[in-house]
Amino acid sequence: MNPPDRFATDLPPLDPAIAAAVRQRWDAKTKPLGSLGQLEALALQVAQIQGREAPAIGSTHVFVFAADHGAARAGVSAYPQDVTWQMVMNFLAGGAAISVLARELGCSLSVVDAGVNHDFEPAPGLVDAKIAHGTASYLEAAAMSAGQCRAALAAGRALALESPADCLLLGEMGIGNTASASLLMHHLTGVALAECVGPGTGLDAAGVARKLELLERASRRHGLGRGDADALAVLATFGGFEIAMLAGCLIGAAQARKVVLVDGFIVGAAALVACRLAPGLERHLVFAHRSAEPAHRRLLAELGARPLLQLDMRLGEGSGAAVALPLLRLSLSLLANMATFESAQVSRAS
Amino acid sequence: MNPPDRFATDLPPLDPAIAAAVRQRWDAKTKPLGSLGQLEALALQVAQIQGREAPAIGSTHVFVFAADHGAARAGVSAYPQDVTWQMVMNFLAGGAAISVLARELGCSLSVVDAGVNHDFEPAPGLVDAKIAHGTASYLEAAAMSAGQCRAALAAGRALALESPADCLLLGEMGIGNTASASLLMHHLTGVALAECVGPGTGLDAAGVARKLELLERASRRHGLGRGDADALAVLATFGGFEIAMLAGCLIGAAQARKVVLVDGFIVGAAALVACRLAPGLERHLVFAHRSAEPAHRRLLAELGARPLLQLDMRLGEGSGAAVALPLLRLSLSLLANMATFESAQVSRAS
Repeated sequence: MNPPDRFATDLPPLDPAIAAAVRQRWDAKTKPLGSLGQLEALALQVAQIQGREAPAIGSTHVFVFAADHGAARAGVSAYPQDVTWQMVMNFLAGGAAISVLARELGCSLSVVDAGVNHDFEPAPGLVDAKIAHGTASYLEAAAMSAGQCRAALAAGRALALESPADCLLLGEMGIGNTASASLLMHHLTGVALAECVGPGTGLDAAGVARKLELLERASRRHGLGRGDADALAVLATFGGFEIAMLAGCLIGAAQARKVVLVDGFIVGAAALVACRLAPGLERHLVFAHRSAEPAHRRLLAELGARPLLQLDMRLGEGSGAAVALPLLRLSLSLLANMATFESAQVSRAS
Repeated sequence: MNPPDRFATDLPPLDPAIAAAVRQRWDAKTKPLGSLGQLEALALQVAQIQGREAPAIGSTHVFVFAADHGAARAGVSAYPQDVTWQMVMNFLAGGAAISVLARELGCSLSVVDAGVNHDFEPAPGLVDAKIAHGTASYLEAAAMSAGQCRAALAAGRALALESPADCLLLGEMGIGNTASASLLMHHLTGVALAECVGPGTGLDAAGVARKLELLERASRRHGLGRGDADALAVLATFGGFEIAMLAGCLIGAAQARKVVLVDGFIVGAAALVACRLAPGLERHLVFAHRSAEPAHRRLLAELGARPLLQLDMRLGEGSGAAVALPLLRLSLSLLANMATFESAQVSRAS
């Protein structure tokens, strides 16, 4: 497992003294011990990520990484490939789910063209980071070259480091990218491919069976290992440009001590790649939700992650990350603003 | 099962045509069918509750119903009874979890003195609806008289009908009220008492065993039925004034077509009582979260309810309802503001 050339993967330490201090702050608040459940664990994690006992979030930014997949034309998705660029236009016009959510939550939003098969005019909110007009099909060749893979990782990391926001919500758009995520999961965890493949945006049972057959062929074709496969090789072979850029962005965000909300199955697969490149990264990531895509449950278990929400969402775009943002904000506000037993003169448990 | 004297329990109809219209609106939005999961079901339910195809929420109000329990002095809680009035002061002073959450979410808040064992000075935000200085102990007698029970139900219903808010978050405070909720659940569902009893605010295993023994004695003492017991008799025998007022408030809110977010185990037990008094009520209620109190899972199943959140919270006060409010707001905003495939010129699934 080699880090990419000139791509630092070291992570800042998570200080146990900060965790202990936050635990003590929570336990002094006017409530039964531990009774805010996951909200207590969340504020504690954010404190460790930020390296301070009083965690807080200023501005929050949404990055939606978009790219096309060569394999999409082989029938691994319920939607035609053109939907990728059409949805990019919808994000920018403000009509997509993530656009509505970002507005409602007061977040800024950029759409990153990581490799969409379309030529966009420059537009406010659109970041041109195009590696190519979509990947090659892994049914025929590696999806991308090693150089393209490194470039995508580095571009994602740079976006995280350069963003002025201290909290990032990461999402994606790319017809065919559930299939790509399934292949990444299979090769990096060793979980049987049939358990990694699902309906994505809405294939029926016959569609899922056909997709599984195609992906089994692709998996055999490249002869990569299972479970302990080289993460960069797997990413270059099966990845999308948006997934590689997401992986870089996740690493960069952790390095910059930013809080990141990880969306669903596809961003989860990018997180898996990133955790293989930067071991321990999972403790720097906040897993927003468990999607309805069946393999996501197992993927989260492989990462030792407990998501905040289970709402049967399966939309992508960062929508699950956005819906979890209020929980993050409320947990930090509770830690900052609740009274203590002493200050409120409330009796403790006998 | 007789409704209380002069206490109307009829509910407005839920129009299936409205559900169909909202389903159609969701399916035209730029997203895979059903991919917003529970958020789609939530907006649809709110539309039916409100009786309109375009559901919306204006102002939201939090009611925290507080009361004391005669049985609390027998050792059914980890906290002394004085904590009830001390926490009322903390709610009013702004230091409790629900105070912080209400501020953060832009909700107004009232604390309703349904029967706290303390004499409060009048204060902004405090509603004096005191039935008595706490209930009698069900270990010795019925907790309240039939007249007190009817008065509490009517007072809660009146508060819902008179509130100018169109969305209500309901919570409670009352040392010993987890025990009361367990007894209500046992007698109204038939679930074994051992499965209805848990640690509440934080009893250890020995404390839970002692609590169960006390509650078994109380249950035997009154000789009420199991499962099909008369809801008013059960409520009067084991209830708290805050639980009775909550039950009335839930019924009143549904009658006024207000959206109600139901908090955890204790408000859940009040909802169970209210559903027995007003059959079908459960479809008018939004269940906010599943608490860490073990019996809450079974209670929700008895009501056929799927909660929005499972965050291991067990604080009460309405804190779980408050944390779920952003999900409700976001679901309504998505339905109102997302583009359609037509308006955004996005291709549909093939």
